Amino acid sequence: MDPAALRAEFPVLDRIAYLNAGTDGPIPRAAVRAAAAEIERQAADGRSGEHFGRMFGRREELRAAYAARLGAAPDDVALTTSTSEGLATVVLGLGLGPGDEIVTSAVEHPGLLGALQAARDLAGVTIRVVPFGDVADAVTPRTRLVASSHVCWVDGRLAPDLRGLEVPVLLDGAQGVGAVATDVAALGCDAYAGSGQKWLCGPDGLGALWVSPALRERLAVTRRSYVSFTAPDAGLDAPLHETARRLDAPALSSEALAFAVASHGVLAAAGWPQVHARAAELAGAFASRLAAAGRTVASRGATTLVSFHSDDPAAEKERLAAQGVVVRDLPGLPLLRVSVGAWNDEADLARLVAALGAA
Amino acid sequence: MDPAALRAEFPVLDRIAYLNAGTDGPIPRAAVRAAAAEIERQAADGRSGEHFGRMFGRREELRAAYAARLGAAPDDVALTTSTSEGLATVVLGLGLGPGDEIVTSAVEHPGLLGALQAARDLAGVTIRVVPFGDVADAVTPRTRLVASSHVCWVDGRLAPDLRGLEVPVLLDGAQGVGAVATDVAALGCDAYAGSGQKWLCGPDGLGALWVSPALRERLAVTRRSYVSFTAPDAGLDAPLHETARRLDAPALSSEALAFAVASHGVLAAAGWPQVHARAAELAGAFASRLAAAGRTVASRGATTLVSFHSDDPAAEKERLAAQGVVVRDLPGLPLLRVSVGAWNDEADLARLVAALGAA
Repeated sequence: MDPAALRAEFPVLDRIAYLNAGTDGPIPRAAVRAAAAEIERQAADGRSGEHFGRMFGRREELRAAYAARLGAAPDDVALTTSTSEGLATVVLGLGLGPGDEIVTSAVEHPGLLGALQAARDLAGVTIRVVPFGDVADAVTPRTRLVASSHVCWVDGRLAPDLRGLEVPVLLDGAQGVGAVATDVAALGCDAYAGSGQKWLCGPDGLGALWVSPALRERLAVTRRSYVSFTAPDAGLDAPLHETARRLDAPALSSEALAFAVASHGVLAAAGWPQVHARAAELAGAFASRLAAAGRTVASRGATTLVSFHSDDPAAEKERLAAQGVVVRDLPGLPLLRVSVGAWNDEADLARLVAALGAA
Repeated sequence: MDPAALRAEFPVLDRIAYLNAGTDGPIPRAAVRAAAAEIERQAADGRSGEHFGRMFGRREELRAAYAARLGAAPDDVALTTSTSEGLATVVLGLGLGPGDEIVTSAVEHPGLLGALQAARDLAGVTIRVVPFGDVADAVTPRTRLVASSHVCWVDGRLAPDLRGLEVPVLLDGAQGVGAVATDVAALGCDAYAGSGQKWLCGPDGLGALWVSPALRERLAVTRRSYVSFTAPDAGLDAPLHETARRLDAPALSSEALAFAVASHGVLAAAGWPQVHARAAELAGAFASRLAAAGRTVASRGATTLVSFHSDDPAAEKERLAAQGVVVRDLPGLPLLRVSVGAWNDEADLARLVAALGAA
């Protein structure tokens, strides 16, 4: 599948220069069809034995797909509703308390900050906040976890080298997995939480959590439901799955799973190395062209997020949207953020630059 | 809308005597259309500002609908992914520890047992298990919570009178809300967790949690995400919502919300008092007719679940399914469970009885 063929899979791109996958990715036609067909089937056939068989089959299909994107084994990947949920599962599962410290950066997303706030307010954990690049150097003898973005949601910077730390490393991969080639072993992390709806073009409400087998051993399973257990009918003594399934979210609909599997399939058909290379090349072109157009670019081309200075980002975002160019502003910061995927092209870039000039 | 008109909304009933709403309800055509239209819109328009505006609007619409079904104020209702999630939010939010005791019954569902197991294994809470009708009498000075089904998932029995207890009461309402008229004040409970996909005919992956304002004050918010906060961009000190929104699940898709709102709307158009009266009347007829057919009925007509003896429930369930009659077996028990909704009719009953006779 060449870039034009991939692009043609996404209806929104017929009309809009959609540059917002860092919030929610574009949706391919195949995913619309898969979700609609699944809901029609449920309405026609009911939701009984076969329905659940199909749902559990799709769970494993999606788990395998997400695991492949992380360079991980499916048994080490849990399916979640969101990056936020995955991050909370790790932060709260460590059972930290007063005297313990978590090191994090000053540019994290509310999805991680919510879990850190809960650890602080409910368990008395100290949260040490340092600049994004400095988390490894900030580890002290009291540090029990380093929690950082893999790719910074504000400006697309990559996390510093976190390999070899003596404390567990948790990465917020909301802007990582699907956007850039991701290998959890090469990153040197112990847990990685990602989103299905952004760079994997799935529905809102699905995500993945990878936890290393060693960390999983230590992680309390705070939320347990039917899907956590190998024998759910064994009552209060039902045994938890040995695998990361013990950390799965309780209720993921078959239509959402079908949607996510189909979206992933479209990108897989284009070839993941090609998807990553094309997105990186385009992001570099966006950064260069924005700089050439006189904009100060916050971070250039290392990933798929390109943020640039705007004197009034909220107003400029609205002006761009009125011209069919969708980007986002970042609360409290003088920046607009452009999300560049393999589905975008030079025409989207030209429209962005023209719209900025016209503003 | 008369009973025949309501029934005509559900495609599965054209072909199947679908008697399994206690697992997952039948899906009305309007919900299929609403979900498909929402996904098509996202694919065509992208998922940016307006998408989130619509999603948050639908959250409030569904919250109000679920609140009305519980006789509660919307501000006291959180949207969850499942009954299991709501139950865990309460059980784990109480911050109990060694020496504390939770009283529960011997016939609870894994959705509640998972949360109780976590409280026992992770916090050292004692779980005291007594017969279903005896939970109120089993309260001791060490009891910190009574946790029971509102309607027993095994045989449809109603919980005993739990009003006036001096400890908080948490009801598992998976077989309650939508099935029988439910008023949390009249029940005398302090928290009530229910399912959207069963008697409210919504998608898998949505539920409601009501918590009284007094209990909410005491409940730690263990899971915090973007939607928990009034000002998510305030970083580590972002303030939690004062309302039950602080307990909302992080990621509920707009298509799932549209589905649930549409399903609820179909039942509301039929009239909730009529829906409850019709289901109760039919459930009574099912129980009488099964008894007349020589089956031992475990519990008759108090709710919408009618369970009856079967020597080989797994095999008999399959034989019924082969004749287009969908019921469920109950693991480890010599019972088949029939779920009777206002969408069923006497023809479904006749098919069930004929299929049982033919078996």
